[in-house]
Amino acid sequence: MPKGFSSFGINIGIKDNTKDFGVIYSEVPCKATAVFTKNNFPGAPVIVGKEHIQSGVLQAVVINSKNSNVATGEKGIQNSRDICKSIAESLGISETLVLPSSTGVIGVPLRMEVILPACKKAKELLKPGNLEEVAEAIMTTDTRKKISFRKIKTKSGEGTIYGIAKGAGMIEPNMATMLCYILSDVSLPENTDLYSILKSSVDQSFNCLTIDSDTSTSDTVALLCNGLAGESSADDFSKALLEICTDLTKLVAIDGEGATKLIELTITGAKNEVQARKIGKSVLNSPLVKTAIYGGDPNWGRLVMAVGKVFDEPIPFEGLEIYFGSLAVKGASPETLKKLSEYLKNNTEISLNVVLNVGATSMKFWGCDLTEKYIEENAYYTT
Amino acid sequence: MPKGFSSFGINIGIKDNTKDFGVIYSEVPCKATAVFTKNNFPGAPVIVGKEHIQSGVLQAVVINSKNSNVATGEKGIQNSRDICKSIAESLGISETLVLPSSTGVIGVPLRMEVILPACKKAKELLKPGNLEEVAEAIMTTDTRKKISFRKIKTKSGEGTIYGIAKGAGMIEPNMATMLCYILSDVSLPENTDLYSILKSSVDQSFNCLTIDSDTSTSDTVALLCNGLAGESSADDFSKALLEICTDLTKLVAIDGEGATKLIELTITGAKNEVQARKIGKSVLNSPLVKTAIYGGDPNWGRLVMAVGKVFDEPIPFEGLEIYFGSLAVKGASPETLKKLSEYLKNNTEISLNVVLNVGATSMKFWGCDLTEKYIEENAYYTT
Repeated sequence: MPKGFSSFGINIGIKDNTKDFGVIYSEVPCKATAVFTKNNFPGAPVIVGKEHIQSGVLQAVVINSKNSNVATGEKGIQNSRDICKSIAESLGISETLVLPSSTGVIGVPLRMEVILPACKKAKELLKPGNLEEVAEAIMTTDTRKKISFRKIKTKSGEGTIYGIAKGAGMIEPNMATMLCYILSDVSLPENTDLYSILKSSVDQSFNCLTIDSDTSTSDTVALLCNGLAGESSADDFSKALLEICTDLTKLVAIDGEGATKLIELTITGAKNEVQARKIGKSVLNSPLVKTAIYGGDPNWGRLVMAVGKVFDEPIPFEGLEIYFGSLAVKGASPETLKKLSEYLKNNTEISLNVVLNVGATSMKFWGCDLTEKYIEENAYYTT
Repeated sequence: MPKGFSSFGINIGIKDNTKDFGVIYSEVPCKATAVFTKNNFPGAPVIVGKEHIQSGVLQAVVINSKNSNVATGEKGIQNSRDICKSIAESLGISETLVLPSSTGVIGVPLRMEVILPACKKAKELLKPGNLEEVAEAIMTTDTRKKISFRKIKTKSGEGTIYGIAKGAGMIEPNMATMLCYILSDVSLPENTDLYSILKSSVDQSFNCLTIDSDTSTSDTVALLCNGLAGESSADDFSKALLEICTDLTKLVAIDGEGATKLIELTITGAKNEVQARKIGKSVLNSPLVKTAIYGGDPNWGRLVMAVGKVFDEPIPFEGLEIYFGSLAVKGASPETLKKLSEYLKNNTEISLNVVLNVGATSMKFWGCDLTEKYIEENAYYTT
């Protein structure tokens, strides 16, 4: 755990009996930055969070799950402010140092009658470190906690970067993922642009992820650095941060609602990042590609369709290559099709490489298969 | 049936025992036009069909199902040409008067050894009218034939416009639907732009349809007019054509793979058609919206998300209105949510109206719900 952070995650009755409320607190103010959803109807906590992050300093995060406080109008924004205010009072800090988050169903008023009393007790509930409890409290349809951390060198010894995330459905992050908090006890050299470092990591990780093509109204990635472990180099920090973001991205993908397989797609030989991104997302969002991978159907033609439906990025068919693992499948013989079917059936991590042969850009993307369970989870429960 | 057309649909052994091969023939050459898929990897028949339609005249259509002859390279194109040539010989017409189509799995060579003998027998198999047989022969995962026709006045009496279509998956047509043939015995006044009339109908019907966001490599809509019933007005013709295209669009939507519900979405008060189209498609392609409608989950917040994720078309949240049937659901009370759930559960045709209140453009779109059966159909079978 990074130094100087304490936290808790508890059940306050928004969910039946699993944890639904968490707070993270740093004993000193943190240099902080965040990226938020590009959905045009951001949730109330995103609106308030964007205000609070302006100063570049945060000291606490407060999160509830099961209700996203989205599409709740002025009242929802006021609720989010009242939560920050109550947490700030309990912790003895300014309310603008609090980043609020909510995740869950859209369009339902927050149950302030259970949230505000919990906020008042925040200070007494905090325990040193303890971030695993928060990782649990922010889960909605997630089936597991998502945590990744790295140690890095600092001038005075060693520091930690510790990230937690949640997200399983309504996931095609744009500028961020559902909810992700990255906490560190290192500081960075004066003049380091923390936002650019975070944005760059997010663009290569969460923004290369799609579970179901639906961009949430709550996406938030926040980075808080309290400096208690001393100063690290910006390069070491960036490298570790990207690793953590990539770990968490893959953890979100494999925990996609109903998913049985993680798909890691490499787009190779694209002319630029925009082209790679459009084609990568088209492939990973195609329900026909996703269901084929689920069922072990060696239907490589669906990949051709998914690359070809990116109308504004035409690729010469002759140069296109498609690999599952090391298996070249374009124009496959019946024996190769059999091998492909076996590869799909015998692996839970599917490695897919689409070679465009039109340029020198390569990028990785992550997604998951589409199964009956995704339908069940989203048809019969209000999530 | 329109005058002067004969046809047949039979099993030639591409499928196990259902019809898989059809031919349509007009006793006189037809003024003809067609729109094809915008997928960057069009099938071989689309490539050959685009050449043959250049002259604006067609006299026959030859179609096989179960194999789309897509991603089959030069050999596939040659196969498509050979089919046209063989049909042309049998019917005693030029091969450029034949429009070829294939639909089904991508990337598998056509079984020419069963197709060419069938082509040779085309003339003897033809029966007057008989288009229902062709409507059956072009089916793949379709569960029912899709037919719509209208009678219209001509100078010499009455003519017919008769349309057949197929399509159930890999359906987000762009410029066309999977396969659709519209046959008429009317002629149109000199200087009528048949292509513009067809394009306009398709843009308001098939291009407003999505089943699974996957744009097929085979999409084709062809219109053939032989003039045997005399000349109609272009206005009457356009009106009837749009009605037929809309009928067929709805028939394709309700027969979407695994679908239990037809969704008719109206986007009202958009600033222009581009905005309406982006938002309409975003809503109908959202798996979270589709599964909620399937399960009767009154989760109107997912509609807000789907409108909001069209990043480049921001809509003021205050002005947004959402109706299921006549039920206004934004900010719904528990009683309204209950009514919404009942509406979803008790209807197989769901009428959804999203009012943007930013302009004066209204458009209709069609789609279907997303169910476990879509997964089953596409995971376990090569289609």
